[in-house]
Amino acid sequence: MVDESFSVTDKANGKITAENLDLLGIGEKVYDLIQSLYPICRSITGDGVRKTLHILRQYIPLDIHEVPTGTQVFDWTVPREWNIREAYIEDSTGNKVVDFSRSSLHVLNYSVPIHQRITLEELKGHLFTLPDHPDWIPYRTSYYKEDWGFCLSHRQYLALQDDTYEVCIDSSLEPGYLTYGEFYVAGERPDEVLISCHICHPSLCNDNLSGIAIAALLAQKLSQLTPHYSYRFLFIPGTIGSITWLALNEAKTDNIKHGLVLTCLGDRGGFTYKRSRQGDAAIDRVVTYALDTMTDDARVIDFSPYGYDERQYCSPGFNLPVGCFMRSPNGTFPEYHTSADNLDFVRPEQLRESFSRLVQIFQILEGNRTYLNLSPMGEPQLGKRGLYRTMGGHQHSENYQMAMLWVLNLSDGHHSLLDIVERSGIPFPAIHQATLALSNSGLLRELC
Amino acid sequence: MVDESFSVTDKANGKITAENLDLLGIGEKVYDLIQSLYPICRSITGDGVRKTLHILRQYIPLDIHEVPTGTQVFDWTVPREWNIREAYIEDSTGNKVVDFSRSSLHVLNYSVPIHQRITLEELKGHLFTLPDHPDWIPYRTSYYKEDWGFCLSHRQYLALQDDTYEVCIDSSLEPGYLTYGEFYVAGERPDEVLISCHICHPSLCNDNLSGIAIAALLAQKLSQLTPHYSYRFLFIPGTIGSITWLALNEAKTDNIKHGLVLTCLGDRGGFTYKRSRQGDAAIDRVVTYALDTMTDDARVIDFSPYGYDERQYCSPGFNLPVGCFMRSPNGTFPEYHTSADNLDFVRPEQLRESFSRLVQIFQILEGNRTYLNLSPMGEPQLGKRGLYRTMGGHQHSENYQMAMLWVLNLSDGHHSLLDIVERSGIPFPAIHQATLALSNSGLLRELC
Amino acid sequence: MVDESFSVTDKANGKITAENLDLLGIGEKVYDLIQSLYPICRSITGDGVRKTLHILRQYIPLDIHEVPTGTQVFDWTVPREWNIREAYIEDSTGNKVVDFSRSSLHVLNYSVPIHQRITLEELKGHLFTLPDHPDWIPYRTSYYKEDWGFCLSHRQYLALQDDTYEVCIDSSLEPGYLTYGEFYVAGERPDEVLISCHICHPSLCNDNLSGIAIAALLAQKLSQLTPHYSYRFLFIPGTIGSITWLALNEAKTDNIKHGLVLTCLGDRGGFTYKRSRQGDAAIDRVVTYALDTMTDDARVIDFSPYGYDERQYCSPGFNLPVGCFMRSPNGTFPEYHTSADNLDFVRPEQLRESFSRLVQIFQILEGNRTYLNLSPMGEPQLGKRGLYRTMGGHQHSENYQMAMLWVLNLSDGHHSLLDIVERSGIPFPAIHQATLALSNSGLLRELC
Repeated sequence: MVDESFSVTDKANGKITAENLDLLGIGEKVYDLIQSLYPICRSITGDGVRKTLHILRQYIPLDIHEVPTGTQVFDWTVPREWNIREAYIEDSTGNKVVDFSRSSLHVLNYSVPIHQRITLEELKGHLFTLPDHPDWIPYRTSYYKEDWGFCLSHRQYLALQDDTYEVCIDSSLEPGYLTYGEFYVAGERPDEVLISCHICHPSLCNDNLSGIAIAALLAQKLSQLTPHYSYRFLFIPGTIGSITWLALNEAKTDNIKHGLVLTCLGDRGGFTYKRSRQGDAAIDRVVTYALDTMTDDARVIDFSPYGYDERQYCSPGFNLPVGCFMRSPNGTFPEYHTSADNLDFVRPEQLRESFSRLVQIFQILEGNRTYLNLSPMGEPQLGKRGLYRTMGGHQHSENYQMAMLWVLNLSDGHHSLLDIVERSGIPFPAIHQATLALSNSGLLRELC
Repeated sequence: MVDESFSVTDKANGKITAENLDLLGIGEKVYDLIQSLYPICRSITGDGVRKTLHILRQYIPLDIHEVPTGTQVFDWTVPREWNIREAYIEDSTGNKVVDFSRSSLHVLNYSVPIHQRITLEELKGHLFTLPDHPDWIPYRTSYYKEDWGFCLSHRQYLALQDDTYEVCIDSSLEPGYLTYGEFYVAGERPDEVLISCHICHPSLCNDNLSGIAIAALLAQKLSQLTPHYSYRFLFIPGTIGSITWLALNEAKTDNIKHGLVLTCLGDRGGFTYKRSRQGDAAIDRVVTYALDTMTDDARVIDFSPYGYDERQYCSPGFNLPVGCFMRSPNGTFPEYHTSADNLDFVRPEQLRESFSRLVQIFQILEGNRTYLNLSPMGEPQLGKRGLYRTMGGHQHSENYQMAMLWVLNLSDGHHSLLDIVERSGIPFPAIHQATLALSNSGLLRELC
Repeated sequence: MVDESFSVTDKANGKITAENLDLLGIGEKVYDLIQSLYPICRSITGDGVRKTLHILRQYIPLDIHEVPTGTQVFDWTVPREWNIREAYIEDSTGNKVVDFSRSSLHVLNYSVPIHQRITLEELKGHLFTLPDHPDWIPYRTSYYKEDWGFCLSHRQYLALQDDTYEVCIDSSLEPGYLTYGEFYVAGERPDEVLISCHICHPSLCNDNLSGIAIAALLAQKLSQLTPHYSYRFLFIPGTIGSITWLALNEAKTDNIKHGLVLTCLGDRGGFTYKRSRQGDAAIDRVVTYALDTMTDDARVIDFSPYGYDERQYCSPGFNLPVGCFMRSPNGTFPEYHTSADNLDFVRPEQLRESFSRLVQIFQILEGNRTYLNLSPMGEPQLGKRGLYRTMGGHQHSENYQMAMLWVLNLSDGHHSLLDIVERSGIPFPAIHQATLALSNSGLLRELC
């Protein structure tokens, strides 16, 4: 566990610590935000995204960007905007057997409009179910091929009679905009930490809303401090959103020194960190160290070009040091991309723990500087600076000084504090504390 | 196992594949050639080598080089040429108790001529047997120290009576030539794959003839295609032959980018690959990968400066990327260098499998190119090129696209396809197939 | 075990070998020196150090340096010189309950003078004992904070009555000198091996005297040879002594290519080698190899910035390749820094073994050269130089030649003999012997 004692020193100057951020009730706050976002039918474009971002504006004054349909973004083109008002399947007795107003998942996302009577046989070619989970509605999309369809529970499907059905999808797919949100917390340095989450999934809590809500509240908290790094929060539709942002902000990417994609942070699973493509970037090492020392059941997995928007940040033309921080990864839990990823699936306690781990990660990331020993010829005399026990010869007090000795010995300009932590086996907080004491005595200078 | 499906694409352009090479009956063809070479008494020089090379000329139009005795080749001198017509030990009753006409192994290879009567006691100082294998004749040589002797079974030895024996070795050791064969298959590029086998052992099937016969038939097959690399086949006496070739062709060695010494390819043992001195050359990685994925009982061993002509190719002045491909290595099977390494010891089925593995190795070696992703900023949109599933949201189809995503992500100019295979865990054929599809769509360019 | 046979060749030219050094009775000689040094009350300055160095002068003509109090040495200042004549605690009946004349440990080292009558209560604040070892006297110092005190056994402590005591410490702490000894053995090359031991501990045998005595006798032995490297022996007070030497000899440190701090070499524990900060310096690899092959219970541990003067030699401004060679490390045995680290704790047999290991280490260190194969194109013909068996074809004789083949193959200027040992798995003596034979035949040239 991180020794909270060293955060005392940081408190004064507004750095990232659990105390400075006041995490009391944070799990419930995140959960409340998830609840308010849950009913909205989001997609990669459209009013669902706008409504979502406007709710986030109650927490942080984020910039809302609107990128016109047809805008060329690298190899892609911003698609037409999709909106939907209602959708249903009505049987010949006037009974709405499937109704979008009951769940935003009921419609194949990006369905083109349709309104006609068709037979059950014709209808079945447009229905999606999960036979293995007969009570759950699946989540399906068809962004780049024009199609229409309904998703429903397998139980609903089996109950459909041989009948003629009125199918209605009152949607529109027209020139418009791709909408995304952006929020920047200026730190001491222009070097940035990128925090990215996708906002394109409809009523799905773990995959989508947990990342959005944690990112929003983290942004709110950080904006009250002056962190070492600047933090850029992106609330974007998956894939097309990150590609759009990268295309429109290519010059800014040089500032991105670290980054995390946030998603699936509310379930009961242990933490999972997916490394950046670089594999040994500072963010990779910091998250690995933090999870190793703070949790029992965490996994660190290698980068692969599938998953979330780390795919784009880690494309070879950018190769940014951006990993993905999750509990249970996409596709590994049965509720994934179904109606069972709902308000019961994510819990305040788990959201709180995820939030808390992120704070600890950023605390270490920010503290992980590199120093230069200004008295490198032999050891400096710690005693005359009040940094050393005054009586020698007894063996039990030696551990007390080890952190200082390690920092002095390895601060040759080539070792970060995390390097020193790894080589010495001494926890980060102790090394950090020793570093502050030595800096205050004029024995260390931070390298920039 | 290699997925044969990807070779379909290659078939059209004459590349190395099992189909293009037509391996039907290859094991029997190799065995037939071994049979025809078996009776010949080969040595490091002389007519045995010439006869051997002339038989190979029935398969490939190889160049036969004759290097005069006394030619200085680096630290060595081409020795006098050795030829033998007959040799025997006859007892006082006129009975030939040992007769070279029955086995080419009966004479100490490079024996100087002798014809005299000697006692059993004198004779014994010139006899070599294998007491542990009383029915086998050992194989012995004395190239660089003038000597004479007979090799015989220990049972023959024990049957020798106290008698006076006529010993006759009708050999000659005179100025002449060192003879070797060379065959070059021009590929698309001047970069060469060197295939080397020794042709200096007399009637020994696994250690010598299996390598010669497989190399000859491989050369014949490759000469009907246009491989990516050029292939140079050397049929040379061990040690002095490779040193001679290197000395006379020093300038050509720059072209050698990969190489294999072939030997011991007909026995029942699992495959053994001995790495080049470099240890991580492309040929080392390709053979290791091929054996790991295609066989169960293969071993990959480190280079050592003993064994076959890889010793010379991997001498520090050359340090060529040449490994040695075998089944059971020299010295590890009891039949090694004895008359039991005969036509029963090597089997068509085993020869066929060895041949087939070599084809797969060269198929991977040739396919292992490096590409550049031409759309490296974010992922390219595969869907608009017909390369991507059109419906998102369901979890089971994601594996289908992984090979393409990996190739795109890692094709930054620093990763060969084998690098991508190793990092992704996806088999080479799938990565290769994805590469072809992406190249055809204009998303990749091969780096030369 | 090191094959002693290869030392024969070295004997002639005065190199380091067990034979050349004549180790007969060496354990007893080391022990005798320890005995003569034991009663002296050493400290970081003062006459105890001078007496110690004068005894060493009976073995080697070492230079004795006197550095004035107040001399600035990097971040430190040479302290005032401490001397002590007598010290005791006398009860009201005139009984000396603690008497420095009985043990040099009884006084807190660097105690300021005091002579007064105090109550038991006042006295107790200046007494140090070891309750867990009631018969042992602890060793305590207070170099850089003015203080006074007595160390005594806990049994003595418990026996103290409620009384008024006369405490007397007849010491002086005045401007003077820091004294250290230095001895230089000129070798064939100016490149140096640094051997350092601390001379500041009073009557402590393992931690202090074992290192001093072994270093002195090793210096004596080496001065009778002409080793390859030059050897510099330092007999210095811990910390301030090495810092002083470094400060006054900064320019000389470039010559230091290898180094060992010697201490704790007389106890019963297995050997411990603490790597230099570099971690993979030649000395690290040589000692590791020597201990791996010569002992069963040795441990090699990583550098840490605590322990002995390797802390100073390995400070980031110097980063010298200096490790620490011990049996039981500081703080790991109960007798450490107590009166139980006495003449019974160190034994001649153990001192002899330590001495012998050091000789083997230096033998390998000196022999670990890098050669260039002068016939690198193919193998040179060993046979014509009498270096090769003359008959080929039989499998059992091949091991006989392996050492020569490995040396030739890897002597490309980038592999030391130890590199060849590690890659080939052949013991150092055999590789070394092969190297001498090849050098004598003109096939190798040593690289400098």
